[in-house]
Amino acid sequence: MERKRIAIVGVGLIGGSLAIRLHEKKISSRLIGVDANKEHEQKALELELVDEVMSIDDAIAASDVVVLAIPVDKLVDLLPSIMDKINNQVVVDLGSTKSQLINAISNHPKRGRYVATHPMWGTEYSGPQAAMRGAYENKAVIICNPEESDADALEWVKYMYKKIGMHLLEMEAKAHDLHAAYVSHISHITSFALANTVLEKEKEEQAIFELASAGFESTVRLAKSNPAMWVPIFMQNKENVLDVLKEHIAQLNRFRESIEKEDNEYLLKLIGDANKIKRIIK
Amino acid sequence: MERKRIAIVGVGLIGGSLAIRLHEKKISSRLIGVDANKEHEQKALELELVDEVMSIDDAIAASDVVVLAIPVDKLVDLLPSIMDKINNQVVVDLGSTKSQLINAISNHPKRGRYVATHPMWGTEYSGPQAAMRGAYENKAVIICNPEESDADALEWVKYMYKKIGMHLLEMEAKAHDLHAAYVSHISHITSFALANTVLEKEKEEQAIFELASAGFESTVRLAKSNPAMWVPIFMQNKENVLDVLKEHIAQLNRFRESIEKEDNEYLLKLIGDANKIKRIIK
Repeated sequence: MERKRIAIVGVGLIGGSLAIRLHEKKISSRLIGVDANKEHEQKALELELVDEVMSIDDAIAASDVVVLAIPVDKLVDLLPSIMDKINNQVVVDLGSTKSQLINAISNHPKRGRYVATHPMWGTEYSGPQAAMRGAYENKAVIICNPEESDADALEWVKYMYKKIGMHLLEMEAKAHDLHAAYVSHISHITSFALANTVLEKEKEEQAIFELASAGFESTVRLAKSNPAMWVPIFMQNKENVLDVLKEHIAQLNRFRESIEKEDNEYLLKLIGDANKIKRIIK
Repeated sequence: MERKRIAIVGVGLIGGSLAIRLHEKKISSRLIGVDANKEHEQKALELELVDEVMSIDDAIAASDVVVLAIPVDKLVDLLPSIMDKINNQVVVDLGSTKSQLINAISNHPKRGRYVATHPMWGTEYSGPQAAMRGAYENKAVIICNPEESDADALEWVKYMYKKIGMHLLEMEAKAHDLHAAYVSHISHITSFALANTVLEKEKEEQAIFELASAGFESTVRLAKSNPAMWVPIFMQNKENVLDVLKEHIAQLNRFRESIEKEDNEYLLKLIGDANKIKRIIK
């Protein structure tokens, strides 16, 4: 496949890490960075994540492909105007929610040039300095409503994701948002709430620092994640997130009850049930 | 320091991993395994975690040090009778709760021979086959109520933990149980409840398997932990665990409220607060 001129809008963790991979895998002939944050643009240049930075309009004009790696609220705001400005470019986004975004341009005359995706990769860090090598590899990427994209646009996006080592899944946006609530969004809420619990209750921070086990670190790791990214995800996926969150609170109340009543049998059963996650997560 | 004959009661993850370290660091001249589970005893021999296996009475008689690495309910049952049987041996336990155990033998004439400890190390796996090299290193170990132990017993136990690379902290049992609820026990409940939530809501297990991100895996990892170990920990530390668990449920309800009301500002604040965990966990 011929190398493309690729604009990356949002040169933070997600866009910056993709830029590294696009170059590494010889997918791009030129990498153009765009970021609303001028310090991030400078940092992306300095780290050589991209070859140059431009305004969004110039970047669209100078590219074959426009990759959008910005928070999902910004995506919903920006995507329609980007679709207005393109000629025949491919536009692909990497956002964590899909329904609102797809609805926002479902009647756009150039809808076919857009491919909606969600690569299941990230870390709890953010910004261009968090961009890392080897990202995305061996993870899943979900392509939503593929039948609404032009065949050539879809083909190129699939080529890109395969080339960087991802395995492809196709899904309707509604199903995507439901599954994402289970396997990603709820984990973040749990972790944020756990951090707040411990910070609220444990006034001796030195004790947390000294005693924190690997277990605690692993459950609280996601609590470092960027609010500007996560607030809009939870809001856009409100119904699914609330549904799973209510179930999670109900499950925690079962643990509370079993301990309050010193009901060993019930607590054994609850933990035994939880152990079944071994079937799914190695 | 002269090498000791060491009996390890409970040759699972915790005892087995310690056995590996004791040999590696030339702390033991002989390692004797004891386990209520005969298959575990055979496995520990086969894996060469210990040199031989014996009944508990024979093991006490043949040792200079008795290490107890069994669930905390079994510890409370067994420790008084072990204290009855020793002459001048050092007895040390590695349990995750300390108050009940220390209370159980506080008036024993040989109380001084016992040292109460909690090394902050573990994995979500269990049994002798889960024992691993390099365990305990660079982690904290808490020694509880050190003033109640004989000087020579305390000195040897500190020597052992330093030699295997741990950093020592001293704490009263009551304070230990409180801190342990914050930095370890609540993480396990969160993770168990998260596993149950997802298993309850997400009937398409294939979807979890394919989509699970690194974030989900890290928050749900502890849900694989052994019920026989964790039920007694939660029950023995009931008051502290319930206190933290109630706070955690309250924190989750704040997330729920902010999303229900689409209160972006409040949700931003909650996540911003959670981000403060960065001060403590790198």
